[in-house]
Amino acid sequence: MRADARRRRDAIISTACSLARTRHEDAIPLEEIAQEAGVGIATLYRNFPDRLSLRQACAEFLIHKATTLLEVADHAITILEEEHQHGAPSAFSLHIEKIWDQLMWDLVELGLGTLMPIFAPNDIASMSPDIREKFDHVIGLLDNVLTHVHRIGLIDRQFDGITIVIGLSTASRPQVPGLSSLVPDLEKQMVRIFLRGLRPVS
Amino acid sequence: MRADARRRRDAIISTACSLARTRHEDAIPLEEIAQEAGVGIATLYRNFPDRLSLRQACAEFLIHKATTLLEVADHAITILEEEHQHGAPSAFSLHIEKIWDQLMWDLVELGLGTLMPIFAPNDIASMSPDIREKFDHVIGLLDNVLTHVHRIGLIDRQFDGITIVIGLSTASRPQVPGLSSLVPDLEKQMVRIFLRGLRPVS
Repeated sequence: MRADARRRRDAIISTACSLARTRHEDAIPLEEIAQEAGVGIATLYRNFPDRLSLRQACAEFLIHKATTLLEVADHAITILEEEHQHGAPSAFSLHIEKIWDQLMWDLVELGLGTLMPIFAPNDIASMSPDIREKFDHVIGLLDNVLTHVHRIGLIDRQFDGITIVIGLSTASRPQVPGLSSLVPDLEKQMVRIFLRGLRPVS
Repeated sequence: MRADARRRRDAIISTACSLARTRHEDAIPLEEIAQEAGVGIATLYRNFPDRLSLRQACAEFLIHKATTLLEVADHAITILEEEHQHGAPSAFSLHIEKIWDQLMWDLVELGLGTLMPIFAPNDIASMSPDIREKFDHVIGLLDNVLTHVHRIGLIDRQFDGITIVIGLSTASRPQVPGLSSLVPDLEKQMVRIFLRGLRPVS
């Protein structure tokens, strides 16, 4: 694919993902996605003959972004552990905690709450094998980060990667506007309570 | 209203609420509600000329049930506090904790997660004044129970009644079947993590 064709395709995908964060994906006309992405509707249809193919591309795009976030966190923790031989244990735990918190909020920011229920198929067995493999890879990366986070006692050992991903998605789902008006910063407050709930109970 | 007419009306309301727990309320034909409730469709329409009036009646029914649960908990705590003069403090805290946990799970069981987003209007200001008054009464009762629960350090003081009601509703929202299959007992696990997150952080 030529560079400008690739750019147009990427613009369509990221626009579709971004619009789906505030509205139900089925309710967004493909014409609107094309317009917002700055491409003609013919270009959109040439890249994505139907809604399903666009949805698959969005799922891959998000999984790719989540993978990058997790690899960065994992890499940072590995470096910290190597340096840890020489450093103070309390500073080490503090650094891991910072990386973990950042990772959690980055995943929320990515749009887990709005997007997971849209892109997750009704039956997990019907997920395309390719996407399923990438999804499992993401969960594996998170489980790997968790081994370090468990070791320093930041998160209760009973909670694994899949539970945390679904929990973040549940806590950050968009709220009915009538409820949002009753609690300041409602969506963030829900994520904060969820993250507190992952800590070990003393 | 005669007793049998009242019974039929109540059957329609509780059937409508119960069906709305697993399916989107708009998608449930009124004919199905009538049939499940064991009444004719004419009886349903005589009681509820349109969907909105049935929805209002369901909201009142649920608020009434929640009010009863809260009054029972409040009453039990009042009795405990009177007896507390003579009892051991640790047993007292343990009893309050039991009442609190029971209350939380009863509210989940009532169907907060499935029903709140359906019955909450898009703009809280558009809630009928009568239902709004009853809703505020429920939140007031919960805030009252919370003063006791805060005092014994069971729940962090920053969390008030409205945050907890919305949080329970968020945590217990039905999950996409594809995700439910990945974590055993997913909906309950989400509520458990939310309830842990309300505790004070040591």
